[in-house]
Amino acid sequence: MQIGTDAPEWQIEAWLNTHVPIDLPTLRGRVVVAGAFQMLCPGCVEHSIPQLKRVDALFESRDVAVVGLHTVFEHHAGMGQMSLAAFLHEYRVTFPVGIDQAGEQGDPIPKTMRRYAMQGTPTLLLIDRNGKLRLHKFGHLSDLQLGAEISLLIAEPGHAAAAGVRDVHACPVPPD
Amino acid sequence: MQIGTDAPEWQIEAWLNTHVPIDLPTLRGRVVVAGAFQMLCPGCVEHSIPQLKRVDALFESRDVAVVGLHTVFEHHAGMGQMSLAAFLHEYRVTFPVGIDQAGEQGDPIPKTMRRYAMQGTPTLLLIDRNGKLRLHKFGHLSDLQLGAEISLLIAEPGHAAAAGVRDVHACPVPPD
Amino acid sequence: MQIGTDAPEWQIEAWLNTHVPIDLPTLRGRVVVAGAFQMLCPGCVEHSIPQLKRVDALFESRDVAVVGLHTVFEHHAGMGQMSLAAFLHEYRVTFPVGIDQAGEQGDPIPKTMRRYAMQGTPTLLLIDRNGKLRLHKFGHLSDLQLGAEISLLIAEPGHAAAAGVRDVHACPVPPD
Amino acid sequence: MQIGTDAPEWQIEAWLNTHVPIDLPTLRGRVVVAGAFQMLCPGCVEHSIPQLKRVDALFESRDVAVVGLHTVFEHHAGMGQMSLAAFLHEYRVTFPVGIDQAGEQGDPIPKTMRRYAMQGTPTLLLIDRNGKLRLHKFGHLSDLQLGAEISLLIAEPGHAAAAGVRDVHACPVPPD
Repeated sequence: MQIGTDAPEWQIEAWLNTHVPIDLPTLRGRVVVAGAFQMLCPGCVEHSIPQLKRVDALFESRDVAVVGLHTVFEHHAGMGQMSLAAFLHEYRVTFPVGIDQAGEQGDPIPKTMRRYAMQGTPTLLLIDRNGKLRLHKFGHLSDLQLGAEISLLIAEPGHAAAAGVRDVHACPVPPD
Repeated sequence: MQIGTDAPEWQIEAWLNTHVPIDLPTLRGRVVVAGAFQMLCPGCVEHSIPQLKRVDALFESRDVAVVGLHTVFEHHAGMGQMSLAAFLHEYRVTFPVGIDQAGEQGDPIPKTMRRYAMQGTPTLLLIDRNGKLRLHKFGHLSDLQLGAEISLLIAEPGHAAAAGVRDVHACPVPPD
Repeated sequence: MQIGTDAPEWQIEAWLNTHVPIDLPTLRGRVVVAGAFQMLCPGCVEHSIPQLKRVDALFESRDVAVVGLHTVFEHHAGMGQMSLAAFLHEYRVTFPVGIDQAGEQGDPIPKTMRRYAMQGTPTLLLIDRNGKLRLHKFGHLSDLQLGAEISLLIAEPGHAAAAGVRDVHACPVPPD
Repeated sequence: MQIGTDAPEWQIEAWLNTHVPIDLPTLRGRVVVAGAFQMLCPGCVEHSIPQLKRVDALFESRDVAVVGLHTVFEHHAGMGQMSLAAFLHEYRVTFPVGIDQAGEQGDPIPKTMRRYAMQGTPTLLLIDRNGKLRLHKFGHLSDLQLGAEISLLIAEPGHAAAAGVRDVHACPVPPD
């Protein structure tokens, strides 16, 4: 996986805040801001989640899709789906969050996290309108830089835009 | 229960960060700073827990005992003991935390929270060296005021001090 | 003066942090981020000056010029040039700052501030590579939005770029 | 000058926010929280001044007197009385501030700063009800600790209290 190549599909066992699964083809035509986090990671709670909420509030949903990835690699028993649902409710997180699939054969690292070779949480991914991975950052990116990166990707033409843009927040009917 | 009267005993189903139960007689002779919180309450995580840690770091353990009370009154399934243990580990909370006993007959409010008539989380309790409840505050108290209140209580004589002061952090052998 | 039209030239009585005056033609070819402030305006000191420093640190000087405008409209005697110079030194402000010319005939509003019809401080101006005023904002703009706005302007072609880009920080020889 | 001995009298060339000079005998009977600062010292503006305002707001004026000392040891020309007056107005500082007298024979260190052997700004002084210097701290003290220190001094008996307590904020008639 390299910057500039197709972003690998994520592997999700359940979605919250959306009635339908959100795979990458669904998001084609929009810039994707994906934040990998753990609900009990202090840096995620203090910096990453609030930043994702600000991104979600600022940009138009036709241009930008914010997606959370719950990539639990420690304290698995303490961060199950019930806990995550309560966390999202209490922290007023309304964008879709996918729970990364448990790792193979006792691997503590879940599958999407492994596939993307993430070093930990928080990790930020930017994927362009054509599905190419454009930024992969472990740790914190300043709001100033993130705003700049996102708007550059928005300004790029998207070949796949003809497929139509659907609003993930609006929970569209899934394609057959 | 009134300010100035004996603080009611708390009812705890399990303790974390201590090998022995911490009841109020155990703490007699010291000023008790007890913080009732929920691990998924944003105000608790942002303000109350860091403040309790600062109190724990500043004052001598022979003078002040910091105790957390996990008073879960919502999202019970998401804030079980495994989740709390992970939370305390990740947020570097090292003072003892007691899990408030589940309420009677389907009451969502746990027993200690009910007994103290707490209005929500965070709630701060100050108990003097003689076991009297001296402050009961729902919401946030400034560091400046909390520091002032604690040091006034420290300066008061404690009739029960003769019983000896034991360090909760040091996990003493329980009395027979 | 309207958004999208030529930015009016500023009227400066003295420059700090640069050996040469910085007029708008000098900056043609670059995006200009101009912050109007007063050194004793608390909102400017807490939010605007740090934000301008972050912009100056993040973007390349060939793309973006950060300029401060000291638009004093109150307490004139307390914010003279000596005070401003000390302020810039203590707050580690290294981008050029122009002192707005005193208003006509006892007008407390200085000339550039009057010409731009600024409502107070801080005020943020964005000027594109071709010298057009693109944003005029009284108060605070989030880092996320400012980063987005700046990078969009950077991405636009600049007709005047052929004139060559000079680095204001480098104190270029003034044009004859 | 040692902790526990009589606090040396300060030497002030002018007072702001009070109609009468505030010498130490005037303050006898109250705990004095004196903050030495410079209006263009970033740490003073960000931490020390807001903390002094919080102290002034929290404690009763019959118990605690907050006093600012403007101890300018650099950029003297940029921090004159007009600038300081504008600063205090803009930052909503309402407690009395004394301007430290210029140093002897070209000494850049002003007299009170020299007498107290201050190492820089901000410096915090605590003086008890009997005029003894009890704390002398260069840099920042946490709110929690400052609140604790002040309330301990409030709780001490003051031998001089019989002389009567006057409210500096109320601008009392000066003694003959």
